[in-house]
Amino acid sequence: MINKLCIIGVGLIGGSLARALKAADFVEHVVAVGRDIDHLKRAVELGVTDSYEASIENAVVDADMIVVAVPVGAMKAVFSELSGKLKADAVVTDVGSVKGNVVRDARAALHDGISRFVPGHPIAGTEQSGVEASFAELYDGQRVILTPLEETDATATQSVTQMWHAAGAEVESLSVEHHDEVLAATSHLPHALAYTLVDTLAQMHEHREIFQFAAGGFKDFTRIASSDPRMWHDICLNNRDALLEMLNRFSVDLNKLTKAIEDEDSEFMLKVFSRAKKARDQNC
Amino acid sequence: MINKLCIIGVGLIGGSLARALKAADFVEHVVAVGRDIDHLKRAVELGVTDSYEASIENAVVDADMIVVAVPVGAMKAVFSELSGKLKADAVVTDVGSVKGNVVRDARAALHDGISRFVPGHPIAGTEQSGVEASFAELYDGQRVILTPLEETDATATQSVTQMWHAAGAEVESLSVEHHDEVLAATSHLPHALAYTLVDTLAQMHEHREIFQFAAGGFKDFTRIASSDPRMWHDICLNNRDALLEMLNRFSVDLNKLTKAIEDEDSEFMLKVFSRAKKARDQNC
Repeated sequence: MINKLCIIGVGLIGGSLARALKAADFVEHVVAVGRDIDHLKRAVELGVTDSYEASIENAVVDADMIVVAVPVGAMKAVFSELSGKLKADAVVTDVGSVKGNVVRDARAALHDGISRFVPGHPIAGTEQSGVEASFAELYDGQRVILTPLEETDATATQSVTQMWHAAGAEVESLSVEHHDEVLAATSHLPHALAYTLVDTLAQMHEHREIFQFAAGGFKDFTRIASSDPRMWHDICLNNRDALLEMLNRFSVDLNKLTKAIEDEDSEFMLKVFSRAKKARDQNC
Repeated sequence: MINKLCIIGVGLIGGSLARALKAADFVEHVVAVGRDIDHLKRAVELGVTDSYEASIENAVVDADMIVVAVPVGAMKAVFSELSGKLKADAVVTDVGSVKGNVVRDARAALHDGISRFVPGHPIAGTEQSGVEASFAELYDGQRVILTPLEETDATATQSVTQMWHAAGAEVESLSVEHHDEVLAATSHLPHALAYTLVDTLAQMHEHREIFQFAAGGFKDFTRIASSDPRMWHDICLNNRDALLEMLNRFSVDLNKLTKAIEDEDSEFMLKVFSRAKKARDQNC
C-alpha cells in the first residue's frame, strides 16, 4: 500500500499506472506534476489523479513513492529537481525505455539518494500517448523490467516490485547493460525500421495511392511509426551505441537478403524466411 | 451467379473465396483441384467445397469460372494444363500477389485464351495459410485489384468483378506495372524487412531472452514474418525488379537515419519520425 504516490509526467504510462493502482486500492492519494497545467487538470477530471502541483518541490512533500514518467531526454532535469527534496524513506523509480543513460543521470543528480532509486521499465504501451489514452489494464500480465544497481536498497526494490505487482504486471530483473541491448533489438530497432519504411513510402510521389492499397499486414507492421516522435528521438539518442550495433547487424543481413534476391539464390532466401517463421512462431 | 466454380489450390485465399460465395448464394457448385488429395478431402469435409478432382483437366469440365489460387511460382504449370481444356465462355482469374510474371506466363500458355483471363489480386490475407484458416468474411470491405490486359474481354472482367463484389470486396483497376510497384512498396518490402529482423534476432546467441522481453509492438511488427516461406520466396523472385528498387530506396534511407543517430542529428531524426507519423496517421 502506498500512502502518497507522486507521478511526474502523467501520460499513457504514468496515467495507466495511477489508474491500475487506484483500481487495486493500492494507493491512498496520487499527486501529479508536469509542465502543462491544463494537462494536469485534465488528469484530475478524468479521475486518474487526486491532485496536482505546479512544482516538483511541492509535489514530493510527504510522497512515499515517486514515479518519473517523463520522456527519457527530460529525466536529467527532473532528477536534479528531486535531489535533497525527498523524505528519507521515499522511493524513486522511473519508466524509461533506456536504462544506462537514465542511471548515469540519476547517479549524478541524486548522490547518496541513488540507494533509494530503482530503475524500471514497463514493457507495455500502445502507439498512443497522453493521459486520455491511459487505462487501468495496460499492465495486466505484461512484464516490467527492474535494473537495480549495486547501491540500491533491497527494500526500495521490494516496494517498486510490489507496486507493479499491484498494477497487474510481472516483474523481472536484468542488468542495466543487458536491458539496453535487449530493448535495442526488440523495440528500438523495430521503431527505427517502421519510421524509415513509412517515410520512404511517404516521399514517393505516388504515395497517396500506395497507402490506399496497403493491407492489414502493412497496418500492423507500421503501427509503431505512429508513436510520439520526440519520445523516440530521445530513446534513440539515449541508447545510441546499442541501437547502432543492432542497425549494423540488421543492415548486414538485409544486404545479404538483397543480394540473394538479385542472384535468385532460392536456398538462401528459403533458409532466412523459414528460420524467421520458426523463431516467431515459437517465441511470439 | 456462377454455376460451376473451379478453384485450383484451396488454401486461405481460395478457401475463403469459396466460403464467401457460398454464404452469398452466388455459386451453385464448387469443385477443387490441387496436389494433395487429403487436403482436397478436408476442404469438402469443412463444407468449403462441394467436390474435388485429382486432375485439372477433369476439374474444369463445364466450369464457368476458374480461380487459380496456387503460389505464384506454380502458376505457369497450371496455365499450361488449362490451355485448350476450357469451355468457350469460361473465365479464368488468379489471386497472385505479383502480376507481371503471372501475365507473362498466362500469355505464353493460354495463347488466344488470354482474352478470357483477368489477372487479379485480393489485398487480404492473414499470416496463416491452409484451408483450415479460411473464413467467409476475409474479403469483407477489402480491396481486390484487377489488372485487365489490352486483350481482355470486357465481359470476363465484369464476371470477375461481380464475383468479388459478391464476396464482399471492393474492386479496383490498375495497370500490371503499377500494381507490381505499389505492392513491392506496401507488401513485399515489409515482408522482406520483417523476415530479416526476426532472423537477425534469432541468430543472436541470447535470442530466447530477447524474444521473451518483446512487447506488443514487436509482435505486430513481426506478424508477417510468420507467413509461408515458399509463397514469399515465389513472390520476391517474381517481383524481383520492383522489390530490389524498393529495397534500395529503403536501404539508402536507413543509412541516412543511422548516420543521423551516429551524428546525434536531432533535426534530421525528428523530421523523419514526424513525417512518418503524419503519413501513417493520415493514411492508415
